[in-house]
Amino acid sequence: MHLESDPDRLLPVDPRTREIARELYRQTAELPILSPHGHVDPGLLLDDEAFADPTELLLRHDHYVTRLLHASGIALNELAVPDRTGAAPTADPRTAWRRFCENWHLFAGTASGYWLHHQFAALFGLTEQPDAANADALYDRISAMLTAPSFRPRALFDAFGIEFLATTDDPLDDLAVHRALAADPAFAGRVAPTFRPDAYLNPAHPDFTANIERLAAWSGSAADDYDGYLAALEARRAHFVTHGAVSADHGVLQPLTVDLGPDEASALFSRAVRGRLGDIEAAVFQGHMLLESARMSVEDGLVMTVHAGVLRNHSTATFETFGPDTGHDIPLRTGYAEALRPLLQRYGNADDFHLVLFTVDETSFSREIAPLAGFYQSLYIGAPWWFLDAPDAILRFRAAVTETAGFYRGSGFVDDTRAFLSIPARHDMARRLDASFLARLVAEGRLDAPMAGRIARDLVDALPRKAFKL
Amino acid sequence: MHLESDPDRLLPVDPRTREIARELYRQTAELPILSPHGHVDPGLLLDDEAFADPTELLLRHDHYVTRLLHASGIALNELAVPDRTGAAPTADPRTAWRRFCENWHLFAGTASGYWLHHQFAALFGLTEQPDAANADALYDRISAMLTAPSFRPRALFDAFGIEFLATTDDPLDDLAVHRALAADPAFAGRVAPTFRPDAYLNPAHPDFTANIERLAAWSGSAADDYDGYLAALEARRAHFVTHGAVSADHGVLQPLTVDLGPDEASALFSRAVRGRLGDIEAAVFQGHMLLESARMSVEDGLVMTVHAGVLRNHSTATFETFGPDTGHDIPLRTGYAEALRPLLQRYGNADDFHLVLFTVDETSFSREIAPLAGFYQSLYIGAPWWFLDAPDAILRFRAAVTETAGFYRGSGFVDDTRAFLSIPARHDMARRLDASFLARLVAEGRLDAPMAGRIARDLVDALPRKAFKL
Amino acid sequence: MHLESDPDRLLPVDPRTREIARELYRQTAELPILSPHGHVDPGLLLDDEAFADPTELLLRHDHYVTRLLHASGIALNELAVPDRTGAAPTADPRTAWRRFCENWHLFAGTASGYWLHHQFAALFGLTEQPDAANADALYDRISAMLTAPSFRPRALFDAFGIEFLATTDDPLDDLAVHRALAADPAFAGRVAPTFRPDAYLNPAHPDFTANIERLAAWSGSAADDYDGYLAALEARRAHFVTHGAVSADHGVLQPLTVDLGPDEASALFSRAVRGRLGDIEAAVFQGHMLLESARMSVEDGLVMTVHAGVLRNHSTATFETFGPDTGHDIPLRTGYAEALRPLLQRYGNADDFHLVLFTVDETSFSREIAPLAGFYQSLYIGAPWWFLDAPDAILRFRAAVTETAGFYRGSGFVDDTRAFLSIPARHDMARRLDASFLARLVAEGRLDAPMAGRIARDLVDALPRKAFKL
Repeated sequence: MHLESDPDRLLPVDPRTREIARELYRQTAELPILSPHGHVDPGLLLDDEAFADPTELLLRHDHYVTRLLHASGIALNELAVPDRTGAAPTADPRTAWRRFCENWHLFAGTASGYWLHHQFAALFGLTEQPDAANADALYDRISAMLTAPSFRPRALFDAFGIEFLATTDDPLDDLAVHRALAADPAFAGRVAPTFRPDAYLNPAHPDFTANIERLAAWSGSAADDYDGYLAALEARRAHFVTHGAVSADHGVLQPLTVDLGPDEASALFSRAVRGRLGDIEAAVFQGHMLLESARMSVEDGLVMTVHAGVLRNHSTATFETFGPDTGHDIPLRTGYAEALRPLLQRYGNADDFHLVLFTVDETSFSREIAPLAGFYQSLYIGAPWWFLDAPDAILRFRAAVTETAGFYRGSGFVDDTRAFLSIPARHDMARRLDASFLARLVAEGRLDAPMAGRIARDLVDALPRKAFKL
Repeated sequence: MHLESDPDRLLPVDPRTREIARELYRQTAELPILSPHGHVDPGLLLDDEAFADPTELLLRHDHYVTRLLHASGIALNELAVPDRTGAAPTADPRTAWRRFCENWHLFAGTASGYWLHHQFAALFGLTEQPDAANADALYDRISAMLTAPSFRPRALFDAFGIEFLATTDDPLDDLAVHRALAADPAFAGRVAPTFRPDAYLNPAHPDFTANIERLAAWSGSAADDYDGYLAALEARRAHFVTHGAVSADHGVLQPLTVDLGPDEASALFSRAVRGRLGDIEAAVFQGHMLLESARMSVEDGLVMTVHAGVLRNHSTATFETFGPDTGHDIPLRTGYAEALRPLLQRYGNADDFHLVLFTVDETSFSREIAPLAGFYQSLYIGAPWWFLDAPDAILRFRAAVTETAGFYRGSGFVDDTRAFLSIPARHDMARRLDASFLARLVAEGRLDAPMAGRIARDLVDALPRKAFKL
Repeated sequence: MHLESDPDRLLPVDPRTREIARELYRQTAELPILSPHGHVDPGLLLDDEAFADPTELLLRHDHYVTRLLHASGIALNELAVPDRTGAAPTADPRTAWRRFCENWHLFAGTASGYWLHHQFAALFGLTEQPDAANADALYDRISAMLTAPSFRPRALFDAFGIEFLATTDDPLDDLAVHRALAADPAFAGRVAPTFRPDAYLNPAHPDFTANIERLAAWSGSAADDYDGYLAALEARRAHFVTHGAVSADHGVLQPLTVDLGPDEASALFSRAVRGRLGDIEAAVFQGHMLLESARMSVEDGLVMTVHAGVLRNHSTATFETFGPDTGHDIPLRTGYAEALRPLLQRYGNADDFHLVLFTVDETSFSREIAPLAGFYQSLYIGAPWWFLDAPDAILRFRAAVTETAGFYRGSGFVDDTRAFLSIPARHDMARRLDASFLARLVAEGRLDAPMAGRIARDLVDALPRKAFKL
């Protein structure tokens, strides 16, 4: 089947509204990309080597893609996801690519399918949709293109118009790659690390004790010294700030915040380090550390982002064989208003404190997140995240939050991706959808075109700059 | 920027559907306003004095508006919200108005922005959108208009076409204002009080004990005499009925109903009066009193309205400085089917008992409220409330409930506002959106135009008259 | 009022999108009906007798219809629902029909109203909407038509184009009716039983003990013999498989699954049989049996369907007088990701195991069900169920699941009805809405027309055949 790319894709179907949307989209389509939260490996840009092959580039690391193929009955190792138990051989890249092409119809209507389509058309100039018959030809064609200098990471970084890119990093990461990249005169882009301390704050994390010991070894304090622990975290954050970080990111099952006194926190910590907390105590300690992290953000200025509500690694067998991020993280119902109240009571209106909330439970947008962001000065509404980062879901998000919180309490779009090549497709999708949403309001007489234009541009530029202090 | 007012605003964008909607809207646009639940001060109509200034009229008391300005970094006292601690001076009205005008873009796409726009255009004839440059001129222009006799509350009441207006009142209110208004031959409008006993039923309310003592003093019974308490509540309800009340309104965190026997209720009450109930016991007692209130409604005919699911005064610091209703009441997940079961088991099909359910958790519309209202004869679906009283939310509400419960199990529109000037804008919005929704069903071949017209008129007239026994 | 039937009903209002939808609908409108889950009485087809009258056929057994009439104030016995207490006389069919016709406006915009409209127009050729004036004439007209051979159940089965119809049956049902029907050379249709063991697995079911005793008597084991109980269930399933069953259906309040060891399960069972389990223990045992049922499905190949989240018989008084399925079953919030985890950990990727999840809590579609089905090979997304089986709800369902799980993880449409005559209306509705949804994606440039056509056909044919192993 032919691979077409509609220049009006994602714009409203009503002709007059589409015309308005086209004009709004025109105003933002070429603006630079600000990507304040994501998972691209900074080494990609430091090394600037050619991508290995289409499977490496588009398939095996993209758990959005591999999970749907898996659901249709294809084992992950057949998709070139490495089996770390060694029990099953991992398919060669070309075979894995064939499985993908044979099953292209599974992606019809999905966000992943849209992004891949965009990349196939805009980046690789493909004119056929993948299928069993053309799999090898497409593989060869993309492979050939990947050897071109214009397909090196840095060239793409420039071609994509990325002005700012944040990575996600371990607190004890030396940030040598970021340092080298910043010092490289041949690379002019701005790439910043992000402080992601979950595995140092959550006693239920399997690496918690080992991480605390590494952190204590680095700082020179005793592993069970709570004050030393806080000081070490603060010092690591300072290291990140020095290296250009703008935010600290927190992934939690529920966004519980707890205000323990220092004595109780210290007592829990010393037991946590010994692996002696029950589930509830561990959650309470993590909730306390979320509050402490907010305090640190108030002090050092790092924007605090919270990604809540995902049950990670739902399938233990898959996790044991293939590791994390293999497609079975499942959202749960998530509450914000009560859980975050201790934090917001303290810091909700604190000077220059920014808290960006992300959710995968879209019921919380109209019920809790927009009302909270419509009052608290520190609170920004995070862009639709993960399973909600898709056309219809993004429009539902806008409809759910705007009537309560307007357009100016949002974070701007966040791609949150480890798939470097999908970044322009994702930002372009968001701009098209914002144009669509705004155009509908104009067509419905709820907004005039000049204000809609200002908002469209602010959503792409002023908002992320403000929310993430860029 | 120019301030325009699209005569087709909120109607569907598809031309044929818009044409159908226009015709439906035409049938209801001029019908009288029935406002069976709201928070307008009846003294406004008794005194009939000119409004002080634009800030007093449109800004400082409207926590929909002040909260969004606050979220953008403006302290509430800068918006002329009185600081009751005296710690910070309260801005003069003109300065507060300037802050609002400078930040008009924050309201783009919001329900508040829509209502203000409507008032600016339809009432004040403004032709420019507020901004920093025209703030003073707009202030002066509106101020000048407020001195005109046509801008006095009674003149507006008539001009708005209000046929019935309910206020919300304390159970011990003597209702002298309502009496005087009813007796005033110069005022022909119908203004009714509403019995709102939350602070007398909920032991966790800070004024509970004081209120019970005042109630007991009034009735002549002992403060901890449970039977005397019930009798006093019944007597106060009778006082309201005598003064034209049609409903009793209940605001609760969760719509829990509990069927305690009289002995257990009496024992809990005597401890409640002494402030000795724990949180759960207080919730149980309140749940018992919600059931008792239903029983009283069955007996005295007052329609029972329940507004559930809002965590009030989320920011303690703001509450302590500026008081309640200052923009930080936040919705929570709310369940109805199990919580209300004891009440519905007893009175769900009781003769002439009407229970109107309001929610700010829109997930409950399709899941619980519409199915309940599709069976129980006493149960009416309340109009979309608070954060859901906005164009997209209202259409979501209609889509969520209609397929299960049809159009005839609803309460009709309820403005629930303390902003007197916004009443016509709100009712007009609801009529436009109902026309839009119905027009879509007609265009989709799901409804014919004559039936749609009948429903459009019934939604504005027959439904609120029936649900609220007007 | 005239009764019209728009040939483009339910298609999108935008003209270009409607044109695309029309073409997609054209490709599926005449395909055979596969109905893999429902509640039609198989005796209807075995006996093949004329339907008694319009009330018997369309009203008294359809609790979608009687509940809305009840909500408007009409007692169920006035609608010819039998009062099993004998307290109130049950109305004669013609009187009940009059009540319905007088209140036809209550069904405007509802799913039931749509299906009835479809039947009135397409089956009975009515040209007037029901009202008080024509009630008797319509009754007579439909009654007369019901005597025609073409209105006998088998003739309708053929005229409807039903290729496969599943009923729902008690585990101890001998399936003699199914056997006779299969053996009848005059009937060529395929009608299969479905194993529905709730009342044998849930200790809180009022008939549990009696059922266990009947089961034990049949199998010859002791009533409290847990191994005998499992073996008897397996034997009954085998009986169903022999008679053509393709699935086992489970109705649960919450989809809890629990992995008890055999000793604990056996101990709980022996107390359950004696009626000695508390509520939580009963839920745990039922959760264990849901896991055991999955194990049996893995072994015998019956597709496992789970219908979760409905609080049955909300009004005890109505239940006592009129029995179950009388319109007051109410959905509750339902969680899947955690509750089903023990089951999915074991069998989520098991060979040839199919688990179809239905929900009446639509928040779970985007949050839990689509992400789960986007990974687990055994898990299929059930069609929108019960209160969600309606035009807007079906489009919300498609929008909620497709972006995450695509089109190929669904069960295909399931009518789940006991109203035999409504089957074509329901399937036609689903096909029109799928055409609408796909057409929008095409018009928005997200899908091309050939792929949309393939998907439209697969949704009606390949998907239900695969999910239900037809």
